[in-house]
Amino acid sequence: MTGTARDERLRAARAYLAAVAEPPAPALAGCVAEHGPVRVAELVHRGVAPAAVADEVEARREHVSGAGLLAATRSSGARLLVPEDPDWPAERFALLAGAAEVGVPGLAAPLALWVRGRAELGPALASSVAVVGARAATGYGEHLAAELGHGLAASGVAVVSGAAYGIDGAAHRGALAAGGTTVAFLACGIDVDYPAGHGRLLRAIATQGLVATEYAPGTTPRRHRFLVRNRLIAACGHGTVVVEAGARSGAGNTANTTDALGLPLMAVPGPVTSASSVGCHDMVRAGKAVLVTSTAQVLEMINPLGAAPPVDPVAADRPTDALEPRARRLHDAIVACNGADSGRLARECGLPVRTVRALLPELELAGLVERKEGGWIAAGG
Amino acid sequence: MTGTARDERLRAARAYLAAVAEPPAPALAGCVAEHGPVRVAELVHRGVAPAAVADEVEARREHVSGAGLLAATRSSGARLLVPEDPDWPAERFALLAGAAEVGVPGLAAPLALWVRGRAELGPALASSVAVVGARAATGYGEHLAAELGHGLAASGVAVVSGAAYGIDGAAHRGALAAGGTTVAFLACGIDVDYPAGHGRLLRAIATQGLVATEYAPGTTPRRHRFLVRNRLIAACGHGTVVVEAGARSGAGNTANTTDALGLPLMAVPGPVTSASSVGCHDMVRAGKAVLVTSTAQVLEMINPLGAAPPVDPVAADRPTDALEPRARRLHDAIVACNGADSGRLARECGLPVRTVRALLPELELAGLVERKEGGWIAAGG
Repeated sequence: MTGTARDERLRAARAYLAAVAEPPAPALAGCVAEHGPVRVAELVHRGVAPAAVADEVEARREHVSGAGLLAATRSSGARLLVPEDPDWPAERFALLAGAAEVGVPGLAAPLALWVRGRAELGPALASSVAVVGARAATGYGEHLAAELGHGLAASGVAVVSGAAYGIDGAAHRGALAAGGTTVAFLACGIDVDYPAGHGRLLRAIATQGLVATEYAPGTTPRRHRFLVRNRLIAACGHGTVVVEAGARSGAGNTANTTDALGLPLMAVPGPVTSASSVGCHDMVRAGKAVLVTSTAQVLEMINPLGAAPPVDPVAADRPTDALEPRARRLHDAIVACNGADSGRLARECGLPVRTVRALLPELELAGLVERKEGGWIAAGG
Repeated sequence: MTGTARDERLRAARAYLAAVAEPPAPALAGCVAEHGPVRVAELVHRGVAPAAVADEVEARREHVSGAGLLAATRSSGARLLVPEDPDWPAERFALLAGAAEVGVPGLAAPLALWVRGRAELGPALASSVAVVGARAATGYGEHLAAELGHGLAASGVAVVSGAAYGIDGAAHRGALAAGGTTVAFLACGIDVDYPAGHGRLLRAIATQGLVATEYAPGTTPRRHRFLVRNRLIAACGHGTVVVEAGARSGAGNTANTTDALGLPLMAVPGPVTSASSVGCHDMVRAGKAVLVTSTAQVLEMINPLGAAPPVDPVAADRPTDALEPRARRLHDAIVACNGADSGRLARECGLPVRTVRALLPELELAGLVERKEGGWIAAGG
């Protein structure tokens, strides 16, 4: 068999396996890890797979064709990414396999991914953050998600999300506007434009980043698929930021998975009067998420050593900040009295006269006070 | 000496001591605790107090008159509250004395308080929360402070604050609107209307609660006095809620004191785009404050045992919430296919046909699906 033929057989087997069971398929994934995709695809197709695997594949094993899927993949302009490819994000999905091994249910790694776009998934996820949130987002939330997407992408961090309306879409758009990399994981086939209004966004993401899914071409979105898909988003970020989430929200599911994978979970606060921030506030209150308010704080969480020193433009220093408390008290009194001798200043601020007399030259040298005919005044006052 | 004369002498001594040193006066407070106010007032007045005390009192000892202060107090419609009175909040101020003893600077208890209003301070503070925040508050912050003040007061909890513009004023007003008790601590004399625009508010507080200060009549506000005053606000709440605070804010000082006193510190989040919430977010990020979003959450913090169970009006249950994951997956498929037999449903959701056949009667019994001519459909669909 030629190398090309071998590769084609491998891809057909992986496509068949990815489509024959509804993800996540832990028994099938375990079997493939042990016996290899080509052998397991044969066993499944012949109906002689082990019992646990049979349950996962029985319904579809005679209705799926690996070769047919590969043809549909090509005709839709997509490609199949398999664990045997060099740009498979092995490290990210090892997190899923690891969590599944210690008994966290539903976290099996995908058997293959359909992808569309220029980027290479593995290298793109070397530095990445998942940004997720409510579909029913507010203008505030969308603004922040776009800012965050922009800031992360501009810092060379890929923005991973789910291409939904609301927060997801805004995060992708922010990253695109920064000319950065963004990755959208779908809960449907690579050839299905969902949500319908995001067809153009998905094409833009493919131009600059990557659209990816573990669902075979033609698969329609279904409620549980969004939840299953969320594990890929959580695993593919080096941390997850929830921008807005109601009391019940799919973002809460991604947040829980992030937590289960041992990755940093962050939440952006908002007005307590907004139902769209309830989920974020609850996560912070429960100690599950760290409150973040800026791109810099997110970068600090995923990369503590490389973080820039915090810059606080609001807390500008005042010239009297460096004064010791008694000198500041005296300075306050001078400002308030505007022309008083040391005796009156002593009474005003309750310090001994000798202390006032000792402090006045210091304040004068610092350029903070001046002696005038009527007494001491604040400099420039 | 008659009882009345003895009481008058005690009050004159306390008034003298409270006015002769700029608060906080730890050496004077310690000396009074040891030797009693009447004796220490005599020593100070005669200029023979111990050296540490002398430093605190030297500037004013010949310029203050206890009897004169009492006369000024009466003529301004206020009264002097002293530690010897039954309604002195001894427990609250013991917290200050305790912190001062273990070396936290600047936390001496007050030597006396000038008060105006109907309420009795000690009993009013049996259940109380301090609500503080920025003077430069936003409409959002003032709305929340008023809601919180109202909610706490309506729950029988006194609202303690500083009568400033912004958050303080809104918290007092909320408590007043609920017909509850509110206490304002001033950074100036009881006869000084500060801030000028809050004269009417201060009178309303006195009608329903209490205005209090450790500063003698005629004392003008001064920057350090606000900071010194803040320790009384922190100590007089059984916890402190910061509603809005910029990166540098007096509320941060009250927050630090609350922390130093071992009392619960809470912060209300806000839009991250608002400079007025930066301080609140920083406190939560630093692990100093617990994020709170409602009166109920504040009550839970100060009174964990008496807390009402959390009510979440947003997270209404769906009828499919109780289903196990495979049944929910099947239900999703039935909704999506709208008339399919068990074979097609099995392929759609990737479950074995026998599992689908076992689950369908359950869903039917639960009233969630119906069998029609064309296949299974969602009930009511």
